Amino acid sequence: MEKIEHIGIAVNDLTVSIPLFEKLLQTPCYKTELVESESVHTAFFKTADSKIELLQSLSADGVIAKFIAKKGEGMHHIAFAVTDIVAEMKRLQDAGFELLNALPKQGADNKLVCFLHPKTTNGVLIEICQDINS
Amino acid sequence: MEKIEHIGIAVNDLTVSIPLFEKLLQTPCYKTELVESESVHTAFFKTADSKIELLQSLSADGVIAKFIAKKGEGMHHIAFAVTDIVAEMKRLQDAGFELLNALPKQGADNKLVCFLHPKTTNGVLIEICQDINS
Repeated sequence: MEKIEHIGIAVNDLTVSIPLFEKLLQTPCYKTELVESESVHTAFFKTADSKIELLQSLSADGVIAKFIAKKGEGMHHIAFAVTDIVAEMKRLQDAGFELLNALPKQGADNKLVCFLHPKTTNGVLIEICQDINS
Repeated sequence: MEKIEHIGIAVNDLTVSIPLFEKLLQTPCYKTELVESESVHTAFFKTADSKIELLQSLSADGVIAKFIAKKGEGMHHIAFAVTDIVAEMKRLQDAGFELLNALPKQGADNKLVCFLHPKTTNGVLIEICQDINS
């Protein structure tokens, strides 16, 4: 785990939340991206060497919509940057953490990603991600 | 907002969660600290230029115990470093964010801190903090 790459925040409506976070963080949203495979529309903000990622569901039965229905808008996951996602997935699995995807999958922001089951990580949804160009 | 200073995670039992996060992050817990005024026992882990802070309640009616009773263990707050907390509190209040404390208060890790009400920040409990020695 090299650094906190980003914190993911579940929101109902990016058109409301983007200006809110621009005001809060005093930095512009520098990118939005649709991730059809995850059924989310994302928006990114830089804060030093990390990012804040807002996530709006594209459908009523998407994971973000379900999360908000259960817990309300708010913090959804923490993503840590890794250099070798395959090696790190093996290390974490061997250490007793449960992987939510057995193979790395394409995430937002040009990353390969893997999520860990919150039941093995103190209730925190953890993502590890490797930049595809690294 | 200069950087993500730390992410606060509510846990039931530090004796369980400290070894879990040491295994997850592959870094030792470098400090624990009692913050009697907040009724929490905290534990810190470094991850590049940010930290993970675990929070265990010291009492059954503390804010962390109440949070866990309502939402379960998991992400509790995001803290951003600022250089001038008084100026930043004024800026945020003028921008429409609600401060949970009108004056900076002593937090863990030698910081002056202020929290923003999650109802004005998309459900995310935001802390701003200034190092007392900075």
